[in-house]
Amino acid sequence: MSTIQAIEVKCYRLPLPVPMEASAAGVMAGFDMVTVQLRDDQGAGGCGYTVLHEGQGAAVAAIADGPFREILQGADPRRIEWLWIQMYKRTHYAGRGGPVAFAHAAVDVALWDMRGNTLGEPLWRLLGGFDPKVRCYAGNIDLNFPLDQLLEGGSKSVEAGFHSVKMRLGKPTLAEDISRVEAMRNHLPAHIDMMADANEAWRVDQAARAMKQLQRFDLVWLEEPIAPDNFEGYRHLRSLGLVPLAAGENLHTVAEFTSLINAGGVDFPEPDLTTCGGITPFMKIAHLAEANGLPVISHGAHDLHVHLLAACPNTAYLEWHAFGLDQFMAQPLTVADGFATAPDRPGHGIEFDWVGMGKFLV
Amino acid sequence: MSTIQAIEVKCYRLPLPVPMEASAAGVMAGFDMVTVQLRDDQGAGGCGYTVLHEGQGAAVAAIADGPFREILQGADPRRIEWLWIQMYKRTHYAGRGGPVAFAHAAVDVALWDMRGNTLGEPLWRLLGGFDPKVRCYAGNIDLNFPLDQLLEGGSKSVEAGFHSVKMRLGKPTLAEDISRVEAMRNHLPAHIDMMADANEAWRVDQAARAMKQLQRFDLVWLEEPIAPDNFEGYRHLRSLGLVPLAAGENLHTVAEFTSLINAGGVDFPEPDLTTCGGITPFMKIAHLAEANGLPVISHGAHDLHVHLLAACPNTAYLEWHAFGLDQFMAQPLTVADGFATAPDRPGHGIEFDWVGMGKFLV
Repeated sequence: MSTIQAIEVKCYRLPLPVPMEASAAGVMAGFDMVTVQLRDDQGAGGCGYTVLHEGQGAAVAAIADGPFREILQGADPRRIEWLWIQMYKRTHYAGRGGPVAFAHAAVDVALWDMRGNTLGEPLWRLLGGFDPKVRCYAGNIDLNFPLDQLLEGGSKSVEAGFHSVKMRLGKPTLAEDISRVEAMRNHLPAHIDMMADANEAWRVDQAARAMKQLQRFDLVWLEEPIAPDNFEGYRHLRSLGLVPLAAGENLHTVAEFTSLINAGGVDFPEPDLTTCGGITPFMKIAHLAEANGLPVISHGAHDLHVHLLAACPNTAYLEWHAFGLDQFMAQPLTVADGFATAPDRPGHGIEFDWVGMGKFLV
Repeated sequence: MSTIQAIEVKCYRLPLPVPMEASAAGVMAGFDMVTVQLRDDQGAGGCGYTVLHEGQGAAVAAIADGPFREILQGADPRRIEWLWIQMYKRTHYAGRGGPVAFAHAAVDVALWDMRGNTLGEPLWRLLGGFDPKVRCYAGNIDLNFPLDQLLEGGSKSVEAGFHSVKMRLGKPTLAEDISRVEAMRNHLPAHIDMMADANEAWRVDQAARAMKQLQRFDLVWLEEPIAPDNFEGYRHLRSLGLVPLAAGENLHTVAEFTSLINAGGVDFPEPDLTTCGGITPFMKIAHLAEANGLPVISHGAHDLHVHLLAACPNTAYLEWHAFGLDQFMAQPLTVADGFATAPDRPGHGIEFDWVGMGKFLV
């Protein structure tokens, strides 16, 4: 048995190459990243991270470096489920979501990475090993882009090898949103699928009106039309049968997915391991979706999610979107002919450029 | 119009007079407290605070002193709803609960206190002004107490003026729990009401078995028999009609109360302003309960909650339990003949002993 000896928590504030806007987030110029590096007494290491909008990295790091460190120090790193529950219980009173879920994620990824490194296995096989080839879509964040830049983004995604492209909704008027979708649909080749993401821009009534007008574009899905915890609202909108619905990036616990799925409110459950507490709960959500006859898709952090989706039989799409974090990775994931392939390197196989990231350390 | 000029955030770690145990929390030897003091350009001040289990005070303070400070600086302190939403949006991605809800609470209380101080009105009248006299119960945390100490705690509560006493459940066997409840029921005078709080000790099946055995004690309520976000579990347990249910201290958003109440899962909704984002959402939850024909009760922080419950027509009980924080207040709340009376001092009327608390500053 090995024990965890070293725990290093760091917080970075990384700029975005281009400021991006989504309705709930507003314009983002950069993002916070919290990394957790673990090492056991046998010399094995694991690295985890989570990313979030600017401003709360310090809170996430304080949790990982405080109560979570106490639990991890000297513990058996193989008992991931046990450690996960200890961290959950330890922060329960001011937990179940928020920055705690993000700190949980960074630690959980580090534990899984260490597991993979120790066993010499890539995460995608360790977690299930369904099929390393995963269908991708371009998760473009482009609400602030004028029309020509919006369409150019679509073209770039197609040229990059995507067969499915998402765009953002939530302009001041529905007419503007619809005209942008129409322009994009006319601009992209017919064989390219389209998704749209409203990032909670609407009330339920507004979402219903929007969906009536959107249905003629045959979208693969409409994402987050309303606030993430309005489960009754999701149930109602889905019951209209107008456009399939995706949601989940803003749900932070398995229980929240249970509520959304049991309400019949979603076609494409979309967990994000960096926001829902890590790989451990992500896999439970993916299996919950499967048990309910639903696919699973991911949100952000595609270099990690490719492993999780490659493990699952009910995978539909990997979102390609990592805040430009690829630039700090030795072998970033690539897409070809609409698919990405989970790497066979042990663990998640991500090697960060710690020197290059150094100047962004908070 | 005044504007917020000074924002001071502090984090304390305060010891408890006696270590206390509850099932979900385990044994607590102390607690973290985060205070937020605001001052406007006219010299008016407001003070807010939140309390939480040891370990996450630093994360809460980082949020209040980081993203929330940016929103508050220079803002009009009277637009509390507007400021609340700005803070909610700003932390939305890693928010909706967890430490964010606690940071939100401390700021929101400070804003309401400033409002009261500026207008010369006590919070209870500012928030509705129903009846300053509020029925109290002793929220004893005593799971770790041997039987004689448990019963002594009951006697002390009666001597202190309470007509209703709560005790904790969650011992290793149900038989032990039942025998402790029976001993307490036999020990207390017949006119003293009893509540019991399992602090999430059980699965749904265990809770149902416990409730069958508990029904002969005619409890006012059984609190948190199961995990707080298992709304379907609450619906099922309440439908059995065995013991009325209380829950809510671990729900951190209005939406979570909507889910619990709409599921028909609770008789006594029990928000805690220090855990659900402050006075602003607490009042919405109290009104949501009223609109659903339900009472409202509170959890902890009785010096603040007395104002909120004194404002509402559907108030049932104020929980008396403040982690011994009373010792640092100039005029702590008192109970007489089962009731407390909201003070007529402006704002919340709490004056902290900052010097005495100084040695516990983190």
